[in-house]
Amino acid sequence: MQENKKPLILVTNDDGYDAKGIKCLIEVARKYGKVVVVAPEIGRSGMAHAITMKKTLTYTLLEQSEDYQLYSCSGTPADCVKIARFQILKQEPDFLFSGINHGSNSSINVVYSGTMGAAFEGAIAGIPSVGFSLLSHNPDADFSEAQKYISQIIEKVIRYGLQPKTALNVNFPKVSEKPYNGIKICHQTKGYWREEYVETSDPWDRKYYWLTGFYTNQEPENIETDEWALANNYVSIVPVHVDLTHYESINELKKQGYEA
Amino acid sequence: MQENKKPLILVTNDDGYDAKGIKCLIEVARKYGKVVVVAPEIGRSGMAHAITMKKTLTYTLLEQSEDYQLYSCSGTPADCVKIARFQILKQEPDFLFSGINHGSNSSINVVYSGTMGAAFEGAIAGIPSVGFSLLSHNPDADFSEAQKYISQIIEKVIRYGLQPKTALNVNFPKVSEKPYNGIKICHQTKGYWREEYVETSDPWDRKYYWLTGFYTNQEPENIETDEWALANNYVSIVPVHVDLTHYESINELKKQGYEA
Repeated sequence: MQENKKPLILVTNDDGYDAKGIKCLIEVARKYGKVVVVAPEIGRSGMAHAITMKKTLTYTLLEQSEDYQLYSCSGTPADCVKIARFQILKQEPDFLFSGINHGSNSSINVVYSGTMGAAFEGAIAGIPSVGFSLLSHNPDADFSEAQKYISQIIEKVIRYGLQPKTALNVNFPKVSEKPYNGIKICHQTKGYWREEYVETSDPWDRKYYWLTGFYTNQEPENIETDEWALANNYVSIVPVHVDLTHYESINELKKQGYEA
Repeated sequence: MQENKKPLILVTNDDGYDAKGIKCLIEVARKYGKVVVVAPEIGRSGMAHAITMKKTLTYTLLEQSEDYQLYSCSGTPADCVKIARFQILKQEPDFLFSGINHGSNSSINVVYSGTMGAAFEGAIAGIPSVGFSLLSHNPDADFSEAQKYISQIIEKVIRYGLQPKTALNVNFPKVSEKPYNGIKICHQTKGYWREEYVETSDPWDRKYYWLTGFYTNQEPENIETDEWALANNYVSIVPVHVDLTHYESINELKKQGYEA
């Protein structure tokens, strides 16, 4: 980022460019710099870090004004980040903000999340990147309180940057009568989904299956987890990174003779 | 796993059920237990940990014999694991093996990989899971030497299990005149892709873009990385896990006043 120049901010999401959540994020981000939005043309929830390798991509400029451009893209959230950097902007954004997702990306949801897939893509590139999500799937969810916290978080990220190859996974509780209790820095809660497939048939009696499931929290009492923070009306921030190595296993595997 | 019973082994991949790589993996896996294959009906490379949320899934039994079943599924590799566990098998497999992928999943490729998305899905569920990949995209690649190492690795995993929430990311060098030099336990190489979009047009002059790129290794000299091992004709094993928290950042973010 050059001195005295407005930061260049890339915004994306996984619910599509016209979701309410991304509009609320754009509104905040525009206070801090020049904003270029490159977001999926349709909802791409659950796309994780998927990229489009065997098909072509397209993108379309939809809106343009001073310090603002909005593009839709036919790809995944990670595709949006790549095509923004290497084809549309042809320069590196100073910051990347993804969301606000309609739905939780806390605990194990982070690994399935297209919102966070985009943030990880930024982290790999060395761009300070943050994914924002709110615990409501309502297309008209109330993001007003989240917006205040997003301002605070963006100001911190602009001031301090982030560690290399890391991003922030920020989740907001669903809005209730009470304002949020503040922010907690957390670790990712251990948990998993127990799935239940709902069977349905077409008119020729062929079977089709819908994915549904129930989340299980494997550490419900741990106050340092994101699930605990959210259940207690705190905004959770988990610093996440893209080195997936489980370092503790390295010596153990060597002792077990894998290299022999 | 019950005593004296053959282990139940789930096999999947991201290149599709009829790729040569998965056939070579099935051949090895069948020596160690009852094998159920649930693999994508078409190639799903680059799908990472994506799941199908807004569309239905289908699956088809294609082949059945003693201690062996082969299903294709319309979903992603992670969908294949979920639908196998909760709909087809309705019980937990004892082990999950994914691959053999036609192409590298070393370094940062691990985050984009459907092969590894399936292995992570097993790790979340507590199933000892391994993803296998070979550094060649040739549909008729030579997997014969890889198969010998897969036997060794499967025997170790059956004997010792793996740490909770971890999986192994195993990559094999492309076959040359020389046999592999052995196995190295490694960490994930720091690296990234610098993309180049190739522009093409349809007959009405609309633009389309193909993703292409060049990998950059950010630690080429580090002998503990998977890229180093592979470049030196070793099989690389990186233990990987699904807790994406960057623990080193937690105190730093607290000091920077994010919680204030």
